[in-house]
Amino acid sequence: MKKRICILGSTGSIGTQALDVIAQHSDLYEAYVLTAYNNADLLIQQARKYMPEAVVIAKESNYETVKEGLSDLPIKVYTGADALCQVVQDDQVDIVLASMVGFAGLEPTIAAIKAQKMIALANKETLVVAGDLITQLANEYQVPILPVDSEHSAIFQCIEPGNKIDKILLTCSGGPFRNFSHEQLKNVTKADALAHPTWNMGAKITIDSATLMNKGFEVIEAKWLFGVKPEQIQVVVHPQSVIHSAVQFEDGAVKAQLGVPDMRLPIQYAFSYPKRLTLDGERLDLFGMKDLTFEQPDVKRFRCLGLAYESLKQGGNMPCIVNAANEVANRAFIDDRIGFEQIADIIEQTMQKIAFTTESTLETYLQTDKEARVYASTLI
Amino acid sequence: MKKRICILGSTGSIGTQALDVIAQHSDLYEAYVLTAYNNADLLIQQARKYMPEAVVIAKESNYETVKEGLSDLPIKVYTGADALCQVVQDDQVDIVLASMVGFAGLEPTIAAIKAQKMIALANKETLVVAGDLITQLANEYQVPILPVDSEHSAIFQCIEPGNKIDKILLTCSGGPFRNFSHEQLKNVTKADALAHPTWNMGAKITIDSATLMNKGFEVIEAKWLFGVKPEQIQVVVHPQSVIHSAVQFEDGAVKAQLGVPDMRLPIQYAFSYPKRLTLDGERLDLFGMKDLTFEQPDVKRFRCLGLAYESLKQGGNMPCIVNAANEVANRAFIDDRIGFEQIADIIEQTMQKIAFTTESTLETYLQTDKEARVYASTLI
Repeated sequence: MKKRICILGSTGSIGTQALDVIAQHSDLYEAYVLTAYNNADLLIQQARKYMPEAVVIAKESNYETVKEGLSDLPIKVYTGADALCQVVQDDQVDIVLASMVGFAGLEPTIAAIKAQKMIALANKETLVVAGDLITQLANEYQVPILPVDSEHSAIFQCIEPGNKIDKILLTCSGGPFRNFSHEQLKNVTKADALAHPTWNMGAKITIDSATLMNKGFEVIEAKWLFGVKPEQIQVVVHPQSVIHSAVQFEDGAVKAQLGVPDMRLPIQYAFSYPKRLTLDGERLDLFGMKDLTFEQPDVKRFRCLGLAYESLKQGGNMPCIVNAANEVANRAFIDDRIGFEQIADIIEQTMQKIAFTTESTLETYLQTDKEARVYASTLI
Repeated sequence: MKKRICILGSTGSIGTQALDVIAQHSDLYEAYVLTAYNNADLLIQQARKYMPEAVVIAKESNYETVKEGLSDLPIKVYTGADALCQVVQDDQVDIVLASMVGFAGLEPTIAAIKAQKMIALANKETLVVAGDLITQLANEYQVPILPVDSEHSAIFQCIEPGNKIDKILLTCSGGPFRNFSHEQLKNVTKADALAHPTWNMGAKITIDSATLMNKGFEVIEAKWLFGVKPEQIQVVVHPQSVIHSAVQFEDGAVKAQLGVPDMRLPIQYAFSYPKRLTLDGERLDLFGMKDLTFEQPDVKRFRCLGLAYESLKQGGNMPCIVNAANEVANRAFIDDRIGFEQIADIIEQTMQKIAFTTESTLETYLQTDKEARVYASTLI
């Protein structure tokens, strides 16, 4: 019996690679629902190829285009944010791949958990914003949350049932500006940041990788996924990105997952866990590589990472505030409206301004998110 | 209920460290039998401290010393090779740590398997000489064989039930002569070889590490422990010895175990598997270390490694021949009777001379071992 997969965000980087995994293992998996925010053309293309039961184009103004583009096929076409929360609940769906970008991933993921779907989680903002709520719901509905980030998948591949984690070594490429001075960072442009050396990702996460906010979010995500304290998570700058992350156990043993960068691996592993399936592609060649190096991250130059740690220590809605301010600032940087270093300024100021609360309801997070966005926008 | 452990070779490097593990977890483990080849003084000391049920001093001429030294205590004292095979069968014994050196470990290990004791295997020669026989017996008697070598323990920590191994990356420090030319290797002395830079081990294994025969034996051991083909085992020279070994799976994921060199870890893990226990001692500090590097091994300069691979490919009693010739040549080098490069010469010539057979009985191996030793001795 094939597993039926609902891909939230099928036109993004993770979504398209997930479809590649499904195509390679079409005996095991089926793309049952595809959803996109606004990329109608690619969604139509994907739907024509994978023949899902339904698609959702979230942006309502693009609905007609998609409807039209699939009018000759028996594929249901929906639109709007509510539709996302509905399709994930479909009885036929086994796995929901949450690979939307940003806060928008939260509500559909909650809906999927409540419908007891297995969650393959690529949308890290979901755990950043509402880690306690999501963790609690996942426990309540007995739903496994399988990480799709390469770092968290690496950690997930290394942990052992019944054995306590002593420390997580969360590796980090350091981003394109690893060796930049404060002075240089001030003058960094969008174009510099988008020329990320190692991976092809969406613009938002590429900027987050350059500020190290992405790593900060991963620290928060790791806390919730693996139930550790912030001080048990050590970010390790490892520019070669060969070690995808590691776990230290109580006996001092460190286990790491290594490989070439290929997001299809964590996607596939989340689908097939605990089994591994074949995956074509390049293999790690230890002999062909440069020496592996490791450095401490510099939270003075990369303040976003420090702010993320700080928000995690404070808890409550603070990570939600950081995420909202970051989404606004990230967008403003992409739109050339602020400089690179202002991203951290805006986040820091928003953290100081928005009311702190430890109430962990969805309503609180929705409210916090809104307020933080409004305030952050006034700083631009 | 404490697990009762019989340590074959308690006065050696592994044995003493195993006693340290037992002392640290005296709520879980008990040293029930201690055995030594000839180190009467240390055996007496250990027995007085750990109060085992029995000790064996294999060398008969040392029996009286040990008997005398423990005469005030209710500890049974035995002597002779047969006693080793008897004590491992004691009903009260749960785990046998086979940490004797060389071929001598084979028969007591077989006796322990037949008595259905869990085997913690540090004596790699057992699998080198009689891998097929041992594997078959372990299956027949449903006895787990848990590796105590740091490399094999690393691999064991990384494998996953139900997921096929694609490739084993067996790391190797390269030994003290890694960068020596043929010319330099000719003039290497025992003193040079015994000044191994990283670990404190017995003399035999230290020389084997310098010739890379130790790594060759580990290749053979890995084949039997993990059921892979010789060509699936890649030796990786990694002078920093931070990665203790790694496994590549079908999906390209590589999992590695890293850490500071501390043999207590694999010993303890073999005792406690699948659980991990706390272990004091230094922790891996990625930030404090030199860059990690990886090289292909050079089987032209380190011929012993090539000979070991060759023997594994041929199978049958060939690894047994290699082991016997190596034990003789290793001893002769320690005794300053041959040069460093003659070790490989002697092994190669013995491989060509002794009758090849694929009969995998204990008698065959005992006979092969004897013949190979006699012949190898004539070459010195």
